[in-house]
Amino acid sequence: MTRAFFATYKIKKMKALVYHGPAKKSWEEKSKPVVQQPTDAIVRITKTTICGTDLHILKGDVPEVTDGRILGHEGVGVIEEAGSAVTNFKKGDHVLISCITSCGKCDYCKRGMYSHCENGGWILGHLIDGTQAEYVRIPHADNSLYHVPVGSDEEALVMLSDILPTGFECGVLNGNVKPGDTVAIVGAGPIGLASLLTAQFYAPAEIIMIDPDDNRLSVSKKFGATQTINNQKSDAVAKLKELTGNKGADTVIEAVGIPETFELCQSLVAPGGTIANIGVHGKPATLHLESLWAHNITITTRLVDTVTTPMLLKTVQSKKLNSKQLITHHFKLSEIIQAYDTFGHAAREKALKVILTNE
Amino acid sequence: MTRAFFATYKIKKMKALVYHGPAKKSWEEKSKPVVQQPTDAIVRITKTTICGTDLHILKGDVPEVTDGRILGHEGVGVIEEAGSAVTNFKKGDHVLISCITSCGKCDYCKRGMYSHCENGGWILGHLIDGTQAEYVRIPHADNSLYHVPVGSDEEALVMLSDILPTGFECGVLNGNVKPGDTVAIVGAGPIGLASLLTAQFYAPAEIIMIDPDDNRLSVSKKFGATQTINNQKSDAVAKLKELTGNKGADTVIEAVGIPETFELCQSLVAPGGTIANIGVHGKPATLHLESLWAHNITITTRLVDTVTTPMLLKTVQSKKLNSKQLITHHFKLSEIIQAYDTFGHAAREKALKVILTNE
Amino acid sequence: MTRAFFATYKIKKMKALVYHGPAKKSWEEKSKPVVQQPTDAIVRITKTTICGTDLHILKGDVPEVTDGRILGHEGVGVIEEAGSAVTNFKKGDHVLISCITSCGKCDYCKRGMYSHCENGGWILGHLIDGTQAEYVRIPHADNSLYHVPVGSDEEALVMLSDILPTGFECGVLNGNVKPGDTVAIVGAGPIGLASLLTAQFYAPAEIIMIDPDDNRLSVSKKFGATQTINNQKSDAVAKLKELTGNKGADTVIEAVGIPETFELCQSLVAPGGTIANIGVHGKPATLHLESLWAHNITITTRLVDTVTTPMLLKTVQSKKLNSKQLITHHFKLSEIIQAYDTFGHAAREKALKVILTNE
Amino acid sequence: MTRAFFATYKIKKMKALVYHGPAKKSWEEKSKPVVQQPTDAIVRITKTTICGTDLHILKGDVPEVTDGRILGHEGVGVIEEAGSAVTNFKKGDHVLISCITSCGKCDYCKRGMYSHCENGGWILGHLIDGTQAEYVRIPHADNSLYHVPVGSDEEALVMLSDILPTGFECGVLNGNVKPGDTVAIVGAGPIGLASLLTAQFYAPAEIIMIDPDDNRLSVSKKFGATQTINNQKSDAVAKLKELTGNKGADTVIEAVGIPETFELCQSLVAPGGTIANIGVHGKPATLHLESLWAHNITITTRLVDTVTTPMLLKTVQSKKLNSKQLITHHFKLSEIIQAYDTFGHAAREKALKVILTNE
Repeated sequence: MTRAFFATYKIKKMKALVYHGPAKKSWEEKSKPVVQQPTDAIVRITKTTICGTDLHILKGDVPEVTDGRILGHEGVGVIEEAGSAVTNFKKGDHVLISCITSCGKCDYCKRGMYSHCENGGWILGHLIDGTQAEYVRIPHADNSLYHVPVGSDEEALVMLSDILPTGFECGVLNGNVKPGDTVAIVGAGPIGLASLLTAQFYAPAEIIMIDPDDNRLSVSKKFGATQTINNQKSDAVAKLKELTGNKGADTVIEAVGIPETFELCQSLVAPGGTIANIGVHGKPATLHLESLWAHNITITTRLVDTVTTPMLLKTVQSKKLNSKQLITHHFKLSEIIQAYDTFGHAAREKALKVILTNE
Repeated sequence: MTRAFFATYKIKKMKALVYHGPAKKSWEEKSKPVVQQPTDAIVRITKTTICGTDLHILKGDVPEVTDGRILGHEGVGVIEEAGSAVTNFKKGDHVLISCITSCGKCDYCKRGMYSHCENGGWILGHLIDGTQAEYVRIPHADNSLYHVPVGSDEEALVMLSDILPTGFECGVLNGNVKPGDTVAIVGAGPIGLASLLTAQFYAPAEIIMIDPDDNRLSVSKKFGATQTINNQKSDAVAKLKELTGNKGADTVIEAVGIPETFELCQSLVAPGGTIANIGVHGKPATLHLESLWAHNITITTRLVDTVTTPMLLKTVQSKKLNSKQLITHHFKLSEIIQAYDTFGHAAREKALKVILTNE
Repeated sequence: MTRAFFATYKIKKMKALVYHGPAKKSWEEKSKPVVQQPTDAIVRITKTTICGTDLHILKGDVPEVTDGRILGHEGVGVIEEAGSAVTNFKKGDHVLISCITSCGKCDYCKRGMYSHCENGGWILGHLIDGTQAEYVRIPHADNSLYHVPVGSDEEALVMLSDILPTGFECGVLNGNVKPGDTVAIVGAGPIGLASLLTAQFYAPAEIIMIDPDDNRLSVSKKFGATQTINNQKSDAVAKLKELTGNKGADTVIEAVGIPETFELCQSLVAPGGTIANIGVHGKPATLHLESLWAHNITITTRLVDTVTTPMLLKTVQSKKLNSKQLITHHFKLSEIIQAYDTFGHAAREKALKVILTNE
Repeated sequence: MTRAFFATYKIKKMKALVYHGPAKKSWEEKSKPVVQQPTDAIVRITKTTICGTDLHILKGDVPEVTDGRILGHEGVGVIEEAGSAVTNFKKGDHVLISCITSCGKCDYCKRGMYSHCENGGWILGHLIDGTQAEYVRIPHADNSLYHVPVGSDEEALVMLSDILPTGFECGVLNGNVKPGDTVAIVGAGPIGLASLLTAQFYAPAEIIMIDPDDNRLSVSKKFGATQTINNQKSDAVAKLKELTGNKGADTVIEAVGIPETFELCQSLVAPGGTIANIGVHGKPATLHLESLWAHNITITTRLVDTVTTPMLLKTVQSKKLNSKQLITHHFKLSEIIQAYDTFGHAAREKALKVILTNE
């Protein structure tokens, strides 16, 4: 074999964060992805991050993720190669990667429900290799990538891969937030904070943040919460009723994912109001229909569709949304094991989102 | 005392169906109601009916109803006297009585949520005397009565006091029924049938009725159901999945009010679909968030607002809605005890709604 | 040259209706289309029709249509060949052709505004060769064709290529037709009748058809109009005011396309109502803002998006919509010149839509 | 006659701004209003203002206003006397007066179209005596007044009588402003500025203000406009196209009321966009249907309903809306003639809204 062969061979390798079963991950060499379908694109990752869902996977809670899978479903990067049927993007374009892959031509995609795309949905770092790597293959690239506007802060845009559309679509849009409303958000983690930031698009009168962590409540205040309630230290229902003239909140956003918090939401919502669930739940919850049947309420669930990404890009560009506030820590991509440790101890580290840069 | 006095006295008495605690009711003499507020009207009942809620009251399930209360919240009649501030109605006008009393000037009324009216809501036959009587006092008459269009079939209109707005608002409107959709209705009692009739305003492709009573299912077919499932004799979930290409129904309407049927609804709804609860629930239900969190569904509850009564009147007048089909039995008002017996054994009697005429 | 060469050559020819400048058309031999892009499909036409727009083109009103263009933008057929990136369809599939070509991946398509697709829109029989031919090339086939459901009446489906989505989207949906409403439709040609048929999805109380042709008004009655007004023989405004208690119509649909009828619509609409324009206008109209500014009205315009085609297919399959009623005449595709003559004299021939069959 | 009689007589007089035909007005003595209906309230005015409409009346443009009419339809005050059927308010309550009188019980009021109330609408300072007086009679007080929240800045609330609901309902709500959108507002007078302020409830990316007055454009910048165009000095269409990548604005708000500006709006709106008319027009405008028919646009008109007043009150209280910015001048109520002079030369005086205080 010639030197040229080895040279070529070397180019085809890359480093990636690989899942090897519950609690096992490593930063290791993998084959660089290649175009498999004419609608694929290969993206060189420049910035990526870690999601709470990645921690769930590592706990073994998402059994569809198998040994050897590269994790990650967020990031920005540069088009390395575009398949022959890709028309929106070409080599060298800077792109935002959506956590949801959309084919654009199944019934669900046509209805804007990309989360349920028959040929996509949430597959990155789940059913196919993801973005915590030097390169990633993006299927249906024309519908699953977005142009990074010239002059953008690319770190800020990483927040648009998942967390901001999730907080906005599942929490704010589904929650039907309106000017003058009272909004309660249960859970001040990154997703709850993403709802807090994007709820302000609609000028609610009050946004009341509820969480047991005082640090997160203090961050919430900085991000625009008008009131905070530490529900470990005080009776959240009593406090919210007091703040709302005994009516409850027009919109209640569940951003935790356990039965207790979903049940709390039921006690917080005003007649005529909405409970918008964002939390990823592993267990059923009790629904108090014996009182709620007559309260004219709406409850919604949603896996993010990322159908609002073009709109969110405009709000970031026009500085209506400062998504960068969500970033607390920076690492090199090669330091991802350390970054997982930081993100995995979010309370201790006062971590929200970490940025991993592929230098 | 003079004869005149007694004459006057006699005029002031009437007959009414009076609740005397669980399982006790009687058709007895009561004082005829009088105008108490300038916004009140006194209506002479010409036609009334019995509601499933009246049976609940008689079981003792509605403790706010106290001994001595005249039952009933539905009916048509003639204005006997109008208070000084009533401007929409005058003595002699034929009127439809809404089961919901609306003041028209509290926050909830202004938002169209009459069910939560701060000065009304469901009070007739509940917190104040009701319509199963020769006369009834209607507070906030201008906003709680509707003119009977000239030439109307007044029996047909009795169905607009409660059952049709309930089936329509809580089931069809909240359920977001659209042309071409698949609708499943769990419960083929009068309310479920009211949803079936009014769902057809929106031309859904399929309306699948689910009930354990074959007679009701056969009535459903006559009323426009495209498919029926006897959920005692077959697996409703399997059958519905088969009928919908394994997708589920876009809208599922709960018209029973027990945990089992609400939980069934959760298995019937398609991703992106809606469960609209109409049932009056006495117990909590289990909400399967562990699967539904990612299904992009909406669940609604609602106490009927009767805000669509003017619209429903137009659909009856224009024969888009044949509300009379819901009437299976006729009685004189004075035979109301017998009517209760018939309605109380609805399955045996094949009863839907009974009409009581004050002759 | 060998016989084989000629055989091959022959296969590559087809017959088509070709535009040769104002008032000139011929049924002549053309090259059979071939796949040009991986997203193209070639469809063998089985049924097609003629649109009022084709007559406009032949008058020279649509200058973008150049000499040599094959006309036609409606039809059903069978996939002859699918490009390498087409995944929804394969050779032999029966398909409905949308008059609007949609790429599924530009901003407009993602927003459901296929009419403004940056890579499509109305191009068939306009900017590229159309469907009045034995074969047609359909770009972006996955998003521009629809599967014909097994067992469908394919003639009935030809009405879904253009006329029914146009009447429905531009007239009924934009017109916000609701149960109990009063709808006035100005123009009882095929498009007005398509609005009439699909308005009934929403159970309006009254649909008043306005046209100067008594035959079309009598067809309107058969199609579900509750009232008709011959606006040549009577004062349409006075008559409509009389029919609506002097209020006007909640929805007014303009289905003609001249200033006079658009101005008539302004006199027919009730306060709070909507004027939905469908007509293809060649001149400006006068907008009476001096009175309308305070009438809380909405005026809409729309080039059909065909975004409701999947829904309309369901309503045809479930027999909520009898689209076949619009078909009055049948011809062989090879008799298309005669068909144009019939369709071009619609009043004389009492023609609505003609079906051309490629036998 | 006794002294007591004269004392009583004196109390029954007040001062008011009275219209005496085109160009004639005076500050003169009038009878103090009295309760005429049980639903009336008498309000002692504390703060009022002058509207552009008052100037129109004084030009003779509103012929329904007759000699002797007290002008004015805005203000805050204190309940002096409440009719017997008024239940929401009592003597001494501080109230905001809506420019629209709503009975709460006609069809229009029930639909939220208070502007078309069959027993009210815009009547103050128009068909009945208005608010530029020491006292005013408010019919249907329960539905036409709003409680001033404790601790409010009452001057700021005067802006909620008319100008802010007008800018918000007719411009922003009807204009369907959404996060990330581009909004163009034609006319930077008080109403256009009210739209500018309230458009920001929905976080549009760009708000482009168009006016020929540089002072108003500079005020617009302070109020949140992202771009301004002086349409006397530059080509507004060319400039806007340049700012929007040649697309046009998603929402265009007409806040002038002449044919030229309405026609300008038609050149500014993007396909799929909305033109929301606020302007009070005296003449028809030309509607360019020959191009707009295919642009999928919406045009709306609206007389303000003030149905959003409760919501706007919440946004003022929660400091999402600084309505006080609109106030440029202060006068005593008795100086109203001078205030009219200032307001009538708005450009010269750099006047937006004036506040008149009844001391």
